[in-house]
Amino acid sequence: MKLLRYGPMGQELPGILDSTGNIRALRPIVRDIDATVLSLEGLRFLGALDVSKLPLVSNPGRLGSPIGAVREIIAIGLNYREHAKESGLPIPSEPVVFGKSTSSISGPDDDILLPPGSEKTDWEIELGIVIGAVARRVTKEVARQYVAGYCMVNDVSERAWQIERGGQWGKGKSFDTFTPVGPWLVTGDELDPNALDLNLQVNGRTCQQGNTSDLIFDVDAVVSYVSQFMTLMPGDLIITGTPAGVGLGMKPPKYLADGDVIDMSVTGLGTQRHAVMKAV
Amino acid sequence: MKLLRYGPMGQELPGILDSTGNIRALRPIVRDIDATVLSLEGLRFLGALDVSKLPLVSNPGRLGSPIGAVREIIAIGLNYREHAKESGLPIPSEPVVFGKSTSSISGPDDDILLPPGSEKTDWEIELGIVIGAVARRVTKEVARQYVAGYCMVNDVSERAWQIERGGQWGKGKSFDTFTPVGPWLVTGDELDPNALDLNLQVNGRTCQQGNTSDLIFDVDAVVSYVSQFMTLMPGDLIITGTPAGVGLGMKPPKYLADGDVIDMSVTGLGTQRHAVMKAV
Repeated sequence: MKLLRYGPMGQELPGILDSTGNIRALRPIVRDIDATVLSLEGLRFLGALDVSKLPLVSNPGRLGSPIGAVREIIAIGLNYREHAKESGLPIPSEPVVFGKSTSSISGPDDDILLPPGSEKTDWEIELGIVIGAVARRVTKEVARQYVAGYCMVNDVSERAWQIERGGQWGKGKSFDTFTPVGPWLVTGDELDPNALDLNLQVNGRTCQQGNTSDLIFDVDAVVSYVSQFMTLMPGDLIITGTPAGVGLGMKPPKYLADGDVIDMSVTGLGTQRHAVMKAV
Repeated sequence: MKLLRYGPMGQELPGILDSTGNIRALRPIVRDIDATVLSLEGLRFLGALDVSKLPLVSNPGRLGSPIGAVREIIAIGLNYREHAKESGLPIPSEPVVFGKSTSSISGPDDDILLPPGSEKTDWEIELGIVIGAVARRVTKEVARQYVAGYCMVNDVSERAWQIERGGQWGKGKSFDTFTPVGPWLVTGDELDPNALDLNLQVNGRTCQQGNTSDLIFDVDAVVSYVSQFMTLMPGDLIITGTPAGVGLGMKPPKYLADGDVIDMSVTGLGTQRHAVMKAV
């Protein structure tokens, strides 16, 4: 299943994609794409629907983040070897984990805002894991049972704020519009998350081209690892790290500017397009 | 006003302290101590109540975190000079900001669990700021308008996980029971947050004794600063850093062990007591 949310920011309605790519409404029965829907029972309920019998949404307008209430964003750093190298940092021997404010979440085609005074705003295409069940110290072998599905995420990062302002990364990762999510949440039965192509272009030029098979710590390893340190809850979004090709790694570094356009795609997870502009 | 929540974990009910120190019930009108209650309008509504006419709660039992739905915990590091020194780190020139999972929140007298294999679990008494209104790039001068109130917090920290496992601190700050909050949320009209004594004892021995007047970045500075990097929302909890006297700073370092008891107090914000035990 491909779940999504459509409508103006803050007023999104839950929907589901049908076999022809049209959006079908899940209201009034489904309140939102939330912890209830993301649970094993919730997804089983949706799986029992004959989607073609649901109301067609002919003019969905804007798409929002496909998860209505992300409880927490847990980010994994330096999880592709070539990206760790381009960042000038050692290949990690275990996952680097940091936080990102949920107030940074936006839709898959929303504008990305450059913070006032920002000179180093950068892109990072990533595979996102959406948690569907309470996970407390789970093993790699059963980790997949706690995953509701996957989505595409841009982990937008202000590098000066992230790296040069105290060393804790969240400061540079949490500005409004810095976490576009979507267009869809694709349930775990529909794809193999460890074999997905990721592609990000800036103004039509390919910058990032990777595959999740190159993750140092794969989906099972990441879910299991994080759950040793904190209890994961339904609606949590783990973003798994970005492949090489960010602006920071270019020689000289190249960052986003007013007027830039970012195009992103991940196999099976759809596309994102962002106009970049200055925050007012 | 002193707001609180009482009852078993996950089933807490909202209450308010009356002038004699008894708990009065806020149900059924108030659903929870949440964003609605924490808003300017919500607090004004509660302020109009004659609390002595509300139902007395004679046997409240356990107290929970006084905030029903902490959206996000934003933690400030190294915000007291002597603590930065004892940690062997430079005095920061601007606030260090990191995240802590909300699944670590517990009540003011709940047990603190030592993670399996943990050898370096440490205490940190802190002043907590509870946000009451959406704050986006606000100045120091108006920062206080976005604060609903204050509470005491123990920022429990596994030092090996925090410092030796990749360098991003949240990993050592997010285990279950690592963020006791309470007993009360005290509204901003009742105290001056920049002149509060903090005291923490382990097994009856005073370890931390400080005053918020020694904060490098005070309440106004912290709220304003964080709001430059991320939008703060009602229900957000900013914890402001801990004074000197943590286990990490002792020579040799001394950490929590099964059977230890922690007593904490902050002027006007009540007391906490925790039994320390191994997680099962």
